[in-house]
Amino acid sequence: MTRPIIGRVVPEQWRSTGATAPGQRSVGEPGTARIAVDLLGGDQAPAVVVDGALRAVQDDPTLHLTLVGPAEASDAVLAALHPAQRHRITAVLGGSAVQAVADGLADAALSAGDTGITVVSAARVLGRWPGVRRPPLAAVLPTVAGRLVLLDVGSTVDPDEQTLAVHARLGAAYAAAVHDIPTPRVGLLTIGTELGKGDRLRRAVPALLADRPLPAGARYTGLVEGGDVVLGHGVDVVVTDGFTGNVLLKALETTYARSGHGAARTPRAAVLLGVGGTVVVCHGSATGADLAGGIAFTAHLHRRSALAAIVDLLTYNEVSHE
Amino acid sequence: MTRPIIGRVVPEQWRSTGATAPGQRSVGEPGTARIAVDLLGGDQAPAVVVDGALRAVQDDPTLHLTLVGPAEASDAVLAALHPAQRHRITAVLGGSAVQAVADGLADAALSAGDTGITVVSAARVLGRWPGVRRPPLAAVLPTVAGRLVLLDVGSTVDPDEQTLAVHARLGAAYAAAVHDIPTPRVGLLTIGTELGKGDRLRRAVPALLADRPLPAGARYTGLVEGGDVVLGHGVDVVVTDGFTGNVLLKALETTYARSGHGAARTPRAAVLLGVGGTVVVCHGSATGADLAGGIAFTAHLHRRSALAAIVDLLTYNEVSHE
Repeated sequence: MTRPIIGRVVPEQWRSTGATAPGQRSVGEPGTARIAVDLLGGDQAPAVVVDGALRAVQDDPTLHLTLVGPAEASDAVLAALHPAQRHRITAVLGGSAVQAVADGLADAALSAGDTGITVVSAARVLGRWPGVRRPPLAAVLPTVAGRLVLLDVGSTVDPDEQTLAVHARLGAAYAAAVHDIPTPRVGLLTIGTELGKGDRLRRAVPALLADRPLPAGARYTGLVEGGDVVLGHGVDVVVTDGFTGNVLLKALETTYARSGHGAARTPRAAVLLGVGGTVVVCHGSATGADLAGGIAFTAHLHRRSALAAIVDLLTYNEVSHE
Repeated sequence: MTRPIIGRVVPEQWRSTGATAPGQRSVGEPGTARIAVDLLGGDQAPAVVVDGALRAVQDDPTLHLTLVGPAEASDAVLAALHPAQRHRITAVLGGSAVQAVADGLADAALSAGDTGITVVSAARVLGRWPGVRRPPLAAVLPTVAGRLVLLDVGSTVDPDEQTLAVHARLGAAYAAAVHDIPTPRVGLLTIGTELGKGDRLRRAVPALLADRPLPAGARYTGLVEGGDVVLGHGVDVVVTDGFTGNVLLKALETTYARSGHGAARTPRAAVLLGVGGTVVVCHGSATGADLAGGIAFTAHLHRRSALAAIVDLLTYNEVSHE
């Protein structure tokens, strides 16, 4: 069973890595973001990662990137860089982008490598927030009505209903803190909006969501279907298992990329919620442009102290309902 | 455990209801199709069903429709019909569209009512093919590369791996017999194409598919992801559980309807495979145009003796591999 977040205190050390509290400055220059990227993450790595890194530093003058990978891959990358780029892009041998965050070498991590490995590694070396047994990946999608947070999109397959209830809380706090959605409306993805529809998991979740307070004044608004993730009417956060979420995300991203719909408005990257650091993943099939967008999104999360803001919402919610 | 189709003989009586063998004629005029429709099926029923029925008979001069429902609903409908329409649209009191097929009052059934009820009712009154414990709903979607069969799209939630293996066989035969896809390529929908990816169910299925012959010269070509259902490159039949399939179908249909992509090329309706009659379901949210398209699709399945053709492929496959 997953321990509830409610009634627990988030230890200070979980705020210090990669997520400075509001008003504080990160290590380094004001506004600087130091992002670690797995050099061998992605189907076309390392070339696509280097392409993404170069695009990202070109777009953002205060961005510093640390490419993490084996010497044989990073040597060639660094040798090919222009001296001006070498100032902004450095290499770390061995380990992973997540480990670089844990070691204080970077403010946040991005990987297009194996999602399962990144998630497990992040949970292990950065720690999990109290009550979060299975950290979810949250994506943001363009809809007809605006932006929509979809989670989980691939971290947790075969979750239980308690896990989905925790994810609903995390998704609501993320939507409010990062995507400026006040009092988010949270829906559960299923295959028919009548009560009793859906599989075993989906039939068990509504009772859990309806009974518990959600952070940021969010409220559970009921069952939603696949089409609602496209339209976004009446829902801001859609909760599902990582299998369904991943299939749906990849299908919609492919459709939107072909139609040009929303391509520039939302990153093709997902943030891992519930671990003690800012970790973002891209698809293995990510392009250089996708990775650059993912890096920019990761830097954005760090600069606006997204993790601390989310934790604050969860903590406030605990206190206010005790 | 599901009994395998291989090695079993399909009883003749399963070919006689709603699916005449190739070369035979259905009851009634040559080319006539008698379709039963649930009058109270659909969120906007009965108005939307009547609208769909009127559109359908207008488009198809040899179509006869039987609207099945309670007297209080059908009386008003029939009273409002023009005398010329009354010749083509009749009413049956009580029961269901599926029951009308079982009773020989119609060649095939369509319902936009509760999918679960229609599926259970069809299995009970029409019977299931040998080896088919859980009949799947198969949809056809437009892709960049052509047409793609997606199943199951909502009939079976929480299936086991044997069920998905049976659905792969049914989907392959359906693609070949009805959508003229020779030697269909069958893929399993999952969240990463490396072996070992996916949830428990998905990890168990590939061994079953790789080992067994598929009908119509179809072959299992491996794991596919959400984006592949949009692109259709290298895959003609995509197998998944009814929960994921339903979510994905509704999301893509909504996207395609908004963009106008493929809207006219594929019906917004799914056929129930593995039962002893032609049964098609539409979404509860179906419009009159959707229902008219579903009725036309149902008539098309009947006229080309789709069920018999599918059964023949499954039977041939059994014999050829014994």
